[in-house]
Amino acid sequence: MIHRFKPTKYYNTYGPNPPVLHVSPGDTIVTTTVDAGGLDQDGNKITEEMRQTSPDTEYSASNPLTGPFYVDGAEPGDTLTVEIQRITLTRPTAWSANASNFGGLTEEAPGRRLLLNEPLPRTSFEWRLDRENNTATINFPESKVRNPVIPLHPFIGSIGVAPRYGRVEMSLTPGEYGGNMDSPEVCVDSTLHLPVNRKGGLLVFGDIHAAQGDGELSGVALETSAELQLKIGLIKKQIEWPRVVNDDWIMVLGSSRPLMEAYKIAHVAIFEWLVADYGYAKWDALQMLSQVGRCTIANTVDPNYTVVAKFPRKYLPQ
Amino acid sequence: MIHRFKPTKYYNTYGPNPPVLHVSPGDTIVTTTVDAGGLDQDGNKITEEMRQTSPDTEYSASNPLTGPFYVDGAEPGDTLTVEIQRITLTRPTAWSANASNFGGLTEEAPGRRLLLNEPLPRTSFEWRLDRENNTATINFPESKVRNPVIPLHPFIGSIGVAPRYGRVEMSLTPGEYGGNMDSPEVCVDSTLHLPVNRKGGLLVFGDIHAAQGDGELSGVALETSAELQLKIGLIKKQIEWPRVVNDDWIMVLGSSRPLMEAYKIAHVAIFEWLVADYGYAKWDALQMLSQVGRCTIANTVDPNYTVVAKFPRKYLPQ
Amino acid sequence: MIHRFKPTKYYNTYGPNPPVLHVSPGDTIVTTTVDAGGLDQDGNKITEEMRQTSPDTEYSASNPLTGPFYVDGAEPGDTLTVEIQRITLTRPTAWSANASNFGGLTEEAPGRRLLLNEPLPRTSFEWRLDRENNTATINFPESKVRNPVIPLHPFIGSIGVAPRYGRVEMSLTPGEYGGNMDSPEVCVDSTLHLPVNRKGGLLVFGDIHAAQGDGELSGVALETSAELQLKIGLIKKQIEWPRVVNDDWIMVLGSSRPLMEAYKIAHVAIFEWLVADYGYAKWDALQMLSQVGRCTIANTVDPNYTVVAKFPRKYLPQ
Amino acid sequence: MIHRFKPTKYYNTYGPNPPVLHVSPGDTIVTTTVDAGGLDQDGNKITEEMRQTSPDTEYSASNPLTGPFYVDGAEPGDTLTVEIQRITLTRPTAWSANASNFGGLTEEAPGRRLLLNEPLPRTSFEWRLDRENNTATINFPESKVRNPVIPLHPFIGSIGVAPRYGRVEMSLTPGEYGGNMDSPEVCVDSTLHLPVNRKGGLLVFGDIHAAQGDGELSGVALETSAELQLKIGLIKKQIEWPRVVNDDWIMVLGSSRPLMEAYKIAHVAIFEWLVADYGYAKWDALQMLSQVGRCTIANTVDPNYTVVAKFPRKYLPQ
Repeated sequence: MIHRFKPTKYYNTYGPNPPVLHVSPGDTIVTTTVDAGGLDQDGNKITEEMRQTSPDTEYSASNPLTGPFYVDGAEPGDTLTVEIQRITLTRPTAWSANASNFGGLTEEAPGRRLLLNEPLPRTSFEWRLDRENNTATINFPESKVRNPVIPLHPFIGSIGVAPRYGRVEMSLTPGEYGGNMDSPEVCVDSTLHLPVNRKGGLLVFGDIHAAQGDGELSGVALETSAELQLKIGLIKKQIEWPRVVNDDWIMVLGSSRPLMEAYKIAHVAIFEWLVADYGYAKWDALQMLSQVGRCTIANTVDPNYTVVAKFPRKYLPQ
Repeated sequence: MIHRFKPTKYYNTYGPNPPVLHVSPGDTIVTTTVDAGGLDQDGNKITEEMRQTSPDTEYSASNPLTGPFYVDGAEPGDTLTVEIQRITLTRPTAWSANASNFGGLTEEAPGRRLLLNEPLPRTSFEWRLDRENNTATINFPESKVRNPVIPLHPFIGSIGVAPRYGRVEMSLTPGEYGGNMDSPEVCVDSTLHLPVNRKGGLLVFGDIHAAQGDGELSGVALETSAELQLKIGLIKKQIEWPRVVNDDWIMVLGSSRPLMEAYKIAHVAIFEWLVADYGYAKWDALQMLSQVGRCTIANTVDPNYTVVAKFPRKYLPQ
Repeated sequence: MIHRFKPTKYYNTYGPNPPVLHVSPGDTIVTTTVDAGGLDQDGNKITEEMRQTSPDTEYSASNPLTGPFYVDGAEPGDTLTVEIQRITLTRPTAWSANASNFGGLTEEAPGRRLLLNEPLPRTSFEWRLDRENNTATINFPESKVRNPVIPLHPFIGSIGVAPRYGRVEMSLTPGEYGGNMDSPEVCVDSTLHLPVNRKGGLLVFGDIHAAQGDGELSGVALETSAELQLKIGLIKKQIEWPRVVNDDWIMVLGSSRPLMEAYKIAHVAIFEWLVADYGYAKWDALQMLSQVGRCTIANTVDPNYTVVAKFPRKYLPQ
Repeated sequence: MIHRFKPTKYYNTYGPNPPVLHVSPGDTIVTTTVDAGGLDQDGNKITEEMRQTSPDTEYSASNPLTGPFYVDGAEPGDTLTVEIQRITLTRPTAWSANASNFGGLTEEAPGRRLLLNEPLPRTSFEWRLDRENNTATINFPESKVRNPVIPLHPFIGSIGVAPRYGRVEMSLTPGEYGGNMDSPEVCVDSTLHLPVNRKGGLLVFGDIHAAQGDGELSGVALETSAELQLKIGLIKKQIEWPRVVNDDWIMVLGSSRPLMEAYKIAHVAIFEWLVADYGYAKWDALQMLSQVGRCTIANTVDPNYTVVAKFPRKYLPQ
């Protein structure tokens, strides 16, 4: 069954927010997302009424999320799967920026002050998207390379479920529940696995990036709106951290800080996965990971950093 | 006005939980707390009915919290003050332990696996409290020092308000809202300042430590129950991080990870405080902090670590 | 001019050791290296007499280095270039291991104790190399995948010059002078650039890895012996950190700890390189790095970790 | 025997530099030190001829060191002890500064660039010392507190021996061999223990601080010149990290980065010391450290940070 859903409200927290739709395992969701700043496909900002609000507190405004989708039958301890079948960019532009107090080469903790230095100036960029040729370009009037043309690689920057114990502070933060992982691996032809912590899972997503380098160094990618087609599944089995599988790799996405802790989380988890599900003796698993494992840094800018541990499928038993 | 409150329910999250009592600025609360494991003054564990529960998720069981107390008139942007007038230990014992996968010299992230090593064995200890002489002792049959007698220094391990954006994951975590800071500075004759994020503030507390070393190295202090007398106040002014003031020091408690980030948070905040409230030119403030500032590490075991930056009151303008 | 050099002595420090040969810029060196454990092409261990020794101190035994080669005309402030023309493996096997107190998922600081946990058991592995087909295989009797066959990707694990201020403690440590970076990018068809700190540069190298995953997780790669052909060059220009260039990428290798500091070093350096040499306005350089930069983690096991920041050559001015 | 030594040359490295004097265990050294910037008791800078130089490299200019003193009979594996009997300040002033790209709230790695922010402005301060009353004062024309008077607490900022494997890069760096630990615990009435790595130990020292806060936040303390009286001893026993003992405490000084690693080093070492020398069963040692251990942060500004783990002598067996 295909659900075509048009959002009228966006959440800024991962948590027990009221579901917008019930879906069943095996169903497909076709819906849209606004960009990290809340701009829709026409470049219009969503209104205050469309945002999550509360009479007695405030919520972060960044990364508005479509959903939550309640998956019937999903119980704590299960695994929700999200097959990313299509990401169609719905706007001819993407905005980006070098953030001021946010990014891997300046203040490391969003919204906190760790330095006495003056903030970086915020600089903004508008990238033009050539969706036919799958490229983007920018105008750099002051640089020798005036109009670089870069390939698009659209992916879902923020996607997650309700966390285990409460409601996560802000949609900028990734963790065990997924969230703002900013991982280019969460793209078409990949399936994301997320641990179910509450009945129904309560899947939300948004923050499409049309392209992004490793680490999202300046704090901002090519931010744009999209239409997504996602096929939902359910596995009666528990995982601790988000996983992505595609034709070539199995992957674990660990999010924490410092960076080394995200690295360790992802690698301990993929090590345990090789042992539990694929018949590797444990020290053989470690040896193989050491020789054929790959690793990428998804972000070094969010309240938790995200590291992706990757193991080639060709070394899994057939 | 003095409120004598006997708790019948304990929370395990910092968040928008229903208040148990309304108090006004200037009022005093006299109430009791159970220990970090949920044991009351008779050593009995609180029942499941007395815990925070939810039909569709689970909550952490550690550090049950008394409250929340709703402070009338407290608005987001205000500062709640808690003068700690009395901490009376209500049990002749305190339990402690060397935790298994938790503590500054083993797995650094509670509930997460970062190492492939076998966990430490959990070892448990019962300390006998001599409340008249303000000491504790233990029996170490295998050590050359058989019965060390150590001084008591009771303090509130966990105390905080509802956080800014949601509900904090678990009562083990400290942050801007206070929480499980495990700071010995939060003791009698000190006043804790906390930022108000939601109407009423929603103050909760528990997890009394009868004594603790810097850093709470093994993950567990002398855990016991107590009766507290706390005088509540309200300041119409915004702070970002918890502060403690006593006769000798002004202090900021920064909580994050890695440890250096908690250090930076606390020190940037106390630097800005010296400039904003005490008339220090900013580079003079930095110079003074460098020469007379003191710093302690409250914990290196919780999901965020806590560092206390201290500045002597004698160098504040009279 | 081609120098064919047969080493009779191996050094275990980066520093002002007596040069074994003078070469000129433009010359080529053909020589051999023993593996990280000191085994030569016949699997024989080098003798004590062939090692660096001292009457009044001891040296680390790991990663014996061929050289130093004195490059005539190289002055402090210059850049030495090493074009890696050939790496021929000279043995049909490579040894590996999961180290005991060394590796990204256990004790993080080689030779130091940071944990109270029992060490991991050391497990050893012998990989058979099929040099004709450029693969390696191993026997895992206890795993479901019994005989995985992995591709070879030989590279130079340790290569560097004399450091700026003295002699580096041990050959395990990477830094500004290069050293034990364990970066797979230092392979055939790449040119490594190193800062000259002392007259002659004093190039040393060894520790060939026949294959290795990102991060060298277990602490050990496929360790083997090799014959190398390296073309030496000299640029009259100063760099701060090692660089690698190949047909597709320009790269900077930053080494430090914690991991995030290595990440920052590499990225600040490549940012400054784009601005200084390639005509990027500085905020344009940051924006491009954020969208098309790539990043790999070379090692998370040595006394300093190494992160590689990569920028595609196709976005450099023609 | 008392050696009165007048230095004519200063070293800027910890390493196998030629000894200026042989002393025997039990002897006392009376000598002088220049300040971290090379200013002597008259405020004159030492000449280039008095510095360590090399025809083919350069050395860091900071923290010139008096020595090395060769301790007869000291062999690798022994422990050198330095009883600090007297520190007499020899100048009526001390200089200080807020450093520009150096300090706990800005660039964390001296001489390296980790941030894109503009550097802090360097601001300089001259403190007047009242050596009779053991205080210092400063003029802050722009601050409400114009002339704070702070207590003096003179200590040796830099003191160490030749390291294990070579020569340490620069006198700014602390490590296993001691070095620029900047720890206020290295003061009068304390005895410092250092591991001997080379014959004679090769003790050097300098960089007296007349006062300093925890962490040396701005990168600079009250830098001045002094005359020292040090009694040298030798213990035929091996230690891994510097220790300080005084009437009340036994202490270990761990130096590394990140900060948490220095914390772990110091605490694992003091834990092992309690077990090896004082008859604590190991889990009892951990429990006691957790309840009565104290910890200070000596510096967060040098290439390695230094953390001091402290255990009260009153809980050692009599």
